[in-house]
Amino acid sequence: MQTQGYAAYTRDTPLKPYVFQRRELRANDVSMEILYCGVCHSDLHTARNDWGWSYYPIVPGHEIVGRVLAVGAAVKRYKVGDHVAVGCMVDSCMECDQCKKGEEQLCREGNTGTYAGRDRITGENTQGGYSKHLVVREEFCLRMPDGLDISKAAPLLCAGITTYSPLRTWGVKAGSRVGVIGLGGLGHMAVKLAVGMGADVTVLSRTADKEADALKLGAARLLVSSDADAMAKAGSSFDLVIDTVPVKHNLDLYTPLLDVDATLVIVGQVGPIEEASTVPLLLGRRRVAGSPIGGIAQTQEMLDFCAEKNILPDCEMIRMDQINEAFERMEKADVRYRFVIDMASLPAA
Amino acid sequence: MQTQGYAAYTRDTPLKPYVFQRRELRANDVSMEILYCGVCHSDLHTARNDWGWSYYPIVPGHEIVGRVLAVGAAVKRYKVGDHVAVGCMVDSCMECDQCKKGEEQLCREGNTGTYAGRDRITGENTQGGYSKHLVVREEFCLRMPDGLDISKAAPLLCAGITTYSPLRTWGVKAGSRVGVIGLGGLGHMAVKLAVGMGADVTVLSRTADKEADALKLGAARLLVSSDADAMAKAGSSFDLVIDTVPVKHNLDLYTPLLDVDATLVIVGQVGPIEEASTVPLLLGRRRVAGSPIGGIAQTQEMLDFCAEKNILPDCEMIRMDQINEAFERMEKADVRYRFVIDMASLPAA
Repeated sequence: MQTQGYAAYTRDTPLKPYVFQRRELRANDVSMEILYCGVCHSDLHTARNDWGWSYYPIVPGHEIVGRVLAVGAAVKRYKVGDHVAVGCMVDSCMECDQCKKGEEQLCREGNTGTYAGRDRITGENTQGGYSKHLVVREEFCLRMPDGLDISKAAPLLCAGITTYSPLRTWGVKAGSRVGVIGLGGLGHMAVKLAVGMGADVTVLSRTADKEADALKLGAARLLVSSDADAMAKAGSSFDLVIDTVPVKHNLDLYTPLLDVDATLVIVGQVGPIEEASTVPLLLGRRRVAGSPIGGIAQTQEMLDFCAEKNILPDCEMIRMDQINEAFERMEKADVRYRFVIDMASLPAA
Repeated sequence: MQTQGYAAYTRDTPLKPYVFQRRELRANDVSMEILYCGVCHSDLHTARNDWGWSYYPIVPGHEIVGRVLAVGAAVKRYKVGDHVAVGCMVDSCMECDQCKKGEEQLCREGNTGTYAGRDRITGENTQGGYSKHLVVREEFCLRMPDGLDISKAAPLLCAGITTYSPLRTWGVKAGSRVGVIGLGGLGHMAVKLAVGMGADVTVLSRTADKEADALKLGAARLLVSSDADAMAKAGSSFDLVIDTVPVKHNLDLYTPLLDVDATLVIVGQVGPIEEASTVPLLLGRRRVAGSPIGGIAQTQEMLDFCAEKNILPDCEMIRMDQINEAFERMEKADVRYRFVIDMASLPAA
């Protein structure tokens, strides 16, 4: 089917309208009209080819909420009219140990990105959610639970699952002492989700400016990371720290905050981390890890959890033609906390 | 009591004889004649004040095997003539959560080093095992199990427990795929201990020179870390990697070797690690951690395990007056794999 969207045509020009084809429905495919799409930092990195794996034109967007338009003959879970969602991946091998465990994001063959990926059957470039329509295999389609505001839910599909998954992996529960570094798209979701799990949440920020925001999101306190006394006092006092900082930074400020055997999980920066000291790791048997999104079953669990707990991202709705301005503002961290594109603003082809 | 040993008097002069006092026996103290003392890299770092916490004169040595000379009135576990051992710590608060769990090395107040520490009662500087005698509280004294060759066992007290503890923390068992980076004092013990637990052990080394040695120690294979093809082929194939490299290095070569959720544990380098990429951590939910020695109960477990499995370090016996030459050779990695001082070579005062 023909559809249209917004694509980057080169790494250094603004996104512009793009008319392209979505594949014909396979037996296990769902086709959807996209209603809303969140704007993730990865979209901008990909538009600019910061990670070296982009092609052009490329349509970003992997926080997708839509309505089913048609289903293939073998589709069992979805029917026309259902509200559905798609996140960062649209396929995987489904046969390796990771896929069989429901950890498709860790597929041994590599999962297929919603954009910047290659269709596993045809080898065609995948194109993301800054568009009117999407065709995706049933197994990578999520169900939007009743009661979740579909106009705000889109950022759950990346920012939500990226922070929900490590909270589950590292066993956060009522009373867990969770630190969140950075209060952007990922950080504000980490706070809301950890609070939803009953954790005692501290936001770490370089200045006290964000204290009111942190408290409003449900954090118990803000810890100013440039305050050496306060940081020393907070030593060894966290069970888990979620590090959402999306640029190169130094971990030595944060690792001493971890209690014995506790972990700092990197979810923001994709690339280099500064030279760091082993001493805090050695002295407290502390750990540093990375975590990539989450599996499909866990993404569904997260959506259901958010519906149950009434957790939604804080969004600023934009029109499709505001995307370049939104990228600029996102770079300046001038958004609280996630842009969502209202796809009704994209005229029909 | 008066004793004698070898001490560093400044950071840049050779160790020389030193006559000093050991404290009078407290009720819960054991006094011992030191028979053997291993030579650890930390001894050299401390003699040179590389870590900034040395005082002078300082007597290094924290891989200590001896014979009980006298016991305080309250001592229950040891009697005169018993073969005993002391490792890297001689005291801790004994009241915090970590001490109560038997993790005295992680004591909230900091454990008291066998050297470069301060006596918790008098505040006096502690002095280590390059000496004729030692007085230590009973709780920090280990029992040498029957059947363990006391002339070779000393390095178990630091090199042994430092590698045994992470193998246990990260659940190594029969069939676990364990990598060991570096084949020195710690590395060769990591190989022997992991093999003793039934693991499939790979030694990682920059060149193939050490292949015969690795196989002799029980490793299944040597992986040449400068061979990019071999390293790529070994990607995601380890459950645990023990990194014994004692200098600043780059982890990016090694983290891709870890399977999903697997950990690289740093036990060698105390200080900076080079700038590293988060990408291998993110893509495989991989982890990097540090681990410091082990608790007293676990150290005893390790000694008993070594006796049961007939595991001993490969040692080169030296006289006390060869210590400066041994330091020089250790710096050039010219020892397979640990120097042990025969304390009978130190004349009586």
